[in-house]
Formats: sequence, structure tokens, C-alpha cells
Amino acid sequence: MGDTILIRNASQLVTLKGSSEAPLTGQGMSNLEIIENGTVWIKDGVIKAAGRDEQIMADYEAGNEAAEIIDARGRLVVPGLIDPHTHLIHAGSREEEFNMRLSGATYMDIMNAGGGIHATASKTRMASREELFRKAFANLNEFLLHGVTTVEAKSGYGMEWETEKKQLLAAKDLNEHHPIDIISTFMGAHAVPADYKERPEEFVDHIIDYMLPKIVEEGLAEFNDVFCEQGVFRPDQARRILEAGKKLGLKAKIHADEIEPYQGAELAAELGAITADHLLKATDAGIKRMAEAGVIGVLLPGTAFFLMAEFANGRKMIDSGVPVALSTDFNPGSSPTVSLPLIMNLACLKMGMTPAEVITAVTINAAHAIGRGKEIGSIEIGKKGDITIFNVPNYMKLQYSFGVNHTHTVIKNGRVVVRERKLVF
Amino acid sequence: MGDTILIRNASQLVTLKGSSEAPLTGQGMSNLEIIENGTVWIKDGVIKAAGRDEQIMADYEAGNEAAEIIDARGRLVVPGLIDPHTHLIHAGSREEEFNMRLSGATYMDIMNAGGGIHATASKTRMASREELFRKAFANLNEFLLHGVTTVEAKSGYGMEWETEKKQLLAAKDLNEHHPIDIISTFMGAHAVPADYKERPEEFVDHIIDYMLPKIVEEGLAEFNDVFCEQGVFRPDQARRILEAGKKLGLKAKIHADEIEPYQGAELAAELGAITADHLLKATDAGIKRMAEAGVIGVLLPGTAFFLMAEFANGRKMIDSGVPVALSTDFNPGSSPTVSLPLIMNLACLKMGMTPAEVITAVTINAAHAIGRGKEIGSIEIGKKGDITIFNVPNYMKLQYSFGVNHTHTVIKNGRVVVRERKLVF
Ligand SMILES: [Zn+2]
Ligand SMILES: [Zn+2]
Repeated sequence: MGDTILIRNASQLVTLKGSSEAPLTGQGMSNLEIIENGTVWIKDGVIKAAGRDEQIMADYEAGNEAAEIIDARGRLVVPGLIDPHTHLIHAGSREEEFNMRLSGATYMDIMNAGGGIHATASKTRMASREELFRKAFANLNEFLLHGVTTVEAKSGYGMEWETEKKQLLAAKDLNEHHPIDIISTFMGAHAVPADYKERPEEFVDHIIDYMLPKIVEEGLAEFNDVFCEQGVFRPDQARRILEAGKKLGLKAKIHADEIEPYQGAELAAELGAITADHLLKATDAGIKRMAEAGVIGVLLPGTAFFLMAEFANGRKMIDSGVPVALSTDFNPGSSPTVSLPLIMNLACLKMGMTPAEVITAVTINAAHAIGRGKEIGSIEIGKKGDITIFNVPNYMKLQYSFGVNHTHTVIKNGRVVVRERKLVF
Repeated sequence: MGDTILIRNASQLVTLKGSSEAPLTGQGMSNLEIIENGTVWIKDGVIKAAGRDEQIMADYEAGNEAAEIIDARGRLVVPGLIDPHTHLIHAGSREEEFNMRLSGATYMDIMNAGGGIHATASKTRMASREELFRKAFANLNEFLLHGVTTVEAKSGYGMEWETEKKQLLAAKDLNEHHPIDIISTFMGAHAVPADYKERPEEFVDHIIDYMLPKIVEEGLAEFNDVFCEQGVFRPDQARRILEAGKKLGLKAKIHADEIEPYQGAELAAELGAITADHLLKATDAGIKRMAEAGVIGVLLPGTAFFLMAEFANGRKMIDSGVPVALSTDFNPGSSPTVSLPLIMNLACLKMGMTPAEVITAVTINAAHAIGRGKEIGSIEIGKKGDITIFNVPNYMKLQYSFGVNHTHTVIKNGRVVVRERKLVF
């Protein structure tokens, strides 16, 4: 901070101006507000001005201060990308399980070989806070190299207090020590742990009576999330957990309708959740209710891709008025990717979204999905100096030239952190 | 050249030893020949030895020569990747057409707006040899950054002699001036040009009587390729063109059964083509004939992905004994990607191939697909010093951690050309 940066002459500067109050919906998701030959002026970590180069430079030169100039000619400048749904903090890596699956193993074969979520949970329980920090730090470096400047991170590989707390403390450490900002979500209700298998209701009580109050007391998270799915947590259990969280000031998120239609979208609308995530099997009625209630649909096409499932119908959701955001769902079991650029490609090619809509879905709508619509997600005066510069001349080419990470320069809080595809912080 | 390089202590060194004579098939496609703690010794551009570190170093130290050491601890070392099917040399970029398509435009809308292959052809006709060179050079840089050290390149955006020749001369220029080796294919029969629309047979005659002899006379290509598809070239026309080429010494390739089953696989087998490419709609009989004749199936999942089509059944082809290779099909209309790493991910997730098979498909089988099985595609004594080092500890993680370009270091002809993800030539 403290520096002045001028990003000059972008062939397209995408500002998404005027979207700080509420997420964009319907046709609004295509209103990118593109400035040709655009320049952004950042001072003390904050955006001071953005507009056509000649206009910004006239103001700047009047003040006559020293600045670092970043030449963005021929390049696309957008708000720093935001990933609103990750399971960032965990131990272990499950490529052997993936290899088994591709070689024809069944779900049960993999479970019997010690795979699945409980494999990650047991490694995460054994790992120290420092080990979790180190592994996530390396992954955050990769996120940054893919243009991402803010990441939501969930707990949920403990399913018991000490590990959940350790994950959330590691997230705090990362927020302090890594340029990327971390927004924390408590997700004690990620799976029913083995020792509660016969009495899941007691685990729900334990989360409500013991964990949630401690989360708030110790200031460990801002959101509260539940995996609501057949065989995991029922809608009535999810409702109890999310309502208890809301009373304590934790905003609600919900893993909804991923594998079976399970009233997840409907529940999100009823509870006024900020987001409902996954939604592959959301019903038309559920989608309609989400649109009415303004619940953001966070779509995770990487997970469908990796699990070889059908994709969520992003097109229908947008056409129905649901504000849509996109995310990697980064996690070691069902979406081990940090590439938000590939997620955008998948949204175009597999969910019927347009290149303009996916830009909105990883910037301002993703910002609203983590309660940060006023601070980040668009390039407007007073917002954080978070900027991603892609080595393509227009936003369409980001999707057209698919499968390639076009990130060239990343600026976080007004500081250059990636320069010519290399970390420089 | 002239230098000595030691790549030491790879966590996995994949050699694919013993595959130079013929492409790998069936179970053979999973025989990667993995050496743990592996070291490769390259001298004067050529592989001098490869094996366990202690064994290689004992030999090396006896000779006592100076070498550059590349530390590959924790990394995966494989033969330099090979892309056996690209339309590398062209002018223009068609992201607006892509945007129209995603926004609901039909094929006819796009054609009426001046899109499609004829848009690329007209821009390519207008471009100079130098312009084609410069654009392709930049794309080759991106290929190299994605771990690719050899690329096949087709003509075919002229459909008249001067432009076809200009494309192939640009390919020669690139082969001289860029580290990547280019293998050239003549593809005059890519589409029927507008002025031959009513008399396509005459265009076939023109290719056979005029173009093919000149290709050979001027030494412009090694392969001869035809787009055999309903509404483009019929199987009998493809046969005439490929047979005429064979008489002149040009090896046959064929764009086969992409959109409709059209006897393309059968024709490839009958003619003894080196490869049949695409094969989304190949019949079971055609696949069987290809296996019997040893025709390599070059699969292009990026094209199916980008066109939102069904994928070719790689699993069935391998199980039927067809040697399978993979490629980007890099071209401005139906697969504008240079990411062979993403193609590998797609082959696993959309074609039923395993992580081991995809390694084979982009190394030794791809080498055989361009007639270079004896020179490249495996890490064996006497082969070219073409090596790609990925920043993952094992070959499975390359597919598990999907959508990310893990290329770290690339060595071409014994020279480091990419170091820590940056071009250094
Ligand atoms: Zn999740
Ligand atoms: Zn092709």
C-alpha cells in the first residue's frame, strides 16, 4: 500500500460499474460496462479513478505524483477474480483414488481402499495448523497465478471441534500472511462423523449447542454452511443448523440439490440464505423461489466435470432471474482444481452461459456471494485496488481460447503480486 | 546443443522404453516404465542415459565432464509432449463468432455474418508469409509453455496453390527459427472452395494433377490429409487424393467420421493410412478394421468440447486394439486451444481413458502418428533430448489436479527452453 499505480490503455477495461448494492440478474448480468483504451488509477490500495485514458491522465497529471505505470495495451483488465466456494484448508491428496475410479473401481472399492471424505478428514485431523497453513499457502499461490484475489474457505474436515477450529485458525493465518483475502465459513455439518453414525441428531445438537456458539465467541467465521443431501443432512436438520447460526449472526450458505432434488433451493429461499451452491438437481419451483428471495446460485461446474455428472442449468437459472456466481469448489475429493479460468470455460460450454455472464459471475456476483459487494468485484472509486490483467484483447477471447490461463498481471490491494505470470510478492 | 544436462532425482521418470518400433496398443498403453528417483543424462542434444540416479551418476562421474544440473526432486519427468494434429498456420481469430454461438446464433446466422472456415481462408489468403509466421510463432511459444516440443501443422486455409504453399513455407520458417519441431502436412482438401462449388470433382483433379506433384517437387510436406465428411469430400474422392499422394511418397492421414459415420475409419484401414483423426462417429466395424491395419486413432476431445458434441469413444478404441494418440486440433474455428494438458484431462473425464494411457497418447503414440517413433516420444538412449518436467510428484496428479498447466521446465534438443514456467530461448 501507499503506492500509486496506473494501469493504462487496456484494450478493454471491464468495470461492472453500479453493481455494488445487489448482485446482477437476468440481462443485467451482461452489462459489463466496457471502456476501450481504459486506465485505472489506484492510490493507497484503493481505486481512485477509472475511465478512458485521456480523461484519467488529465486528472492525474494535474496532481503530479509519482506512479508505477503498467502498460495494458492489447490486454483485458477486470476486477480481481473472486472464488466464493472452496474447501481450501485440508491435508492430503487423492489422485490414487481418482486413478482407481478411471480404471473402473466402484465407490465401494474406493471406500474399502480408505478413500473418500473420511480419508481427507483423518489426514486433516493429524496435520498441524502449520502444515495446513503451508499446503494452503501453496494452493493460494496457484489461485493468484490464475487471477484470483479473494477466496472463501470452509472448514468441515474435522467434524469435531478441535480440527474445525484448527482449519479456521489456519484460514486466519493465511488471511494475514498471504496477499489473497480469505473469507471464512464454518461447515461443521459437512458429513456425519463415524462415531455419530447411529445418532446423527445428536451431532446436529452438538453443532448447534457447542460448536456454533464457540465459532461466534472466538470470531472464527462469518458464514455457516451445511451439506444438505440424501444420506448426509436432511432439510430439517439443515434448517435447524442454519437458523441457529443466523440467531448468532452467522450468514447462511447451503450445499443444495447436488445429487438428488432435496428441497435445498427451496430451503435456501425460505431461510434467506446468501447463497445456495451446486444446484445440479434443483427443481423449477426451487429456482423460482431463489429468484424471488434473491438467493445467489453458486455454480460449480468443475465438480460436475470431475465427477462426470450432468451440469447445473446455469442458463435456466439466469433466465429465471437467479443471480449466478461461479466457483472452483476447490477440494481434494470432487474438484481438485484452482483454475477459475477453466471454470469459466466450462460455464460457457456446459452450462449455456455467455462470455459476458461468466465475467459477472466471477467478479461482482461472487463478491455479493461472500457479502463483499461494496468492497470488491467491480472497478469503482473507493473499492479495493484488486485487478486482474489478462493477456487477451477482449473478454470473449478469454473463453474462446479455452483451457489456457491467460492471467498476466495481478494487483491486490494496490500492490503488484503477479507480474508477467510470476509471483512477485 | 553441445551442452551436457543432467535432470536428477525425478520422483517419477516416465521413459516409455521399448516402444520405438510400433505404437502401443491395449494393455501396452499402460506400460509407462516408471523409474523412481530417476535421472536423465543428455549430451549434444541427444539422450545418453536414463535410469536410477545412483546408477546414472556413477557412469557420469567416471567421465568427469561439466554439466548443467536440473533438480527434478518432487517432479514428474516425461518425454517432451507431441501434438500430432494442428492447423497451426492461419490468420485471424473468431471469438466473436463463438460469442454469437453461445448467445444462441445458428450456423446460418454465423455464416451470414461472415464466419466459418471461409472467414479464416480469406484472411489467410490476404496475410503475408511473415504475418503467418509471426502469429504461429506466438502460438508455438504457448505450446512450449504447455510442455509441447513437436507439433504437426497442416495447410488447408488456401484451397488454392499460392496460399497452401505460403502456409507450408511459413511452417518451414518456423521449423528453422522456433525450438519446436514442425512436421508438415498438405491438406488442400480441407473444404471445396467457392469457385469449385458446382464442380467439386474438378477441384479433386486439380489437387491430384497440379498441387500434389508440386508439394513433392518443392519438398513442402511429408503427409497428405483429406477432410472426408458429408458435404465436404466423399470417401471415393478422399481415396483418389490419398492414393495419388501415396504414389508420390506422401503418407496418408484422414479427417474421418467426425460428424456422421462416413466410412472414414474403414477407408483409413484400406489405404494403410498412418492415422485416422476425430472418429466421433466411427462404426464398430471401422474401429475393428483400424485395429487390424494398425492405423493410429488421433482423438481430438478439445473439438468435441468446444463444439458441445459427443466425445469419441477412446475407451472402446483402446479395448479394441486401436493405438490411440491425442491432440489439440488447434485451429481458429473448432478448437482454439494450445493446451495439450487440458486435452489429457478431457480424455480421462470424457473418453474413459486412464492417466497412464493419456501419457502414452501424447508421447510415443503421438510420435508414431507423425512418423517419428524412432526419434522422439520416449526417453531412451540415442533419442532426441526432448523432455518435459511437470510440477507434480506423479503422473496421476497431472490429471487429478485438472485444468492447470503444470509444466515447469522444458528441454528441447538438449537445451533448456522453458525454465520455471518462463520462456528462456
Ligand atoms: Zn463444497
Ligand atoms: Zn483437423
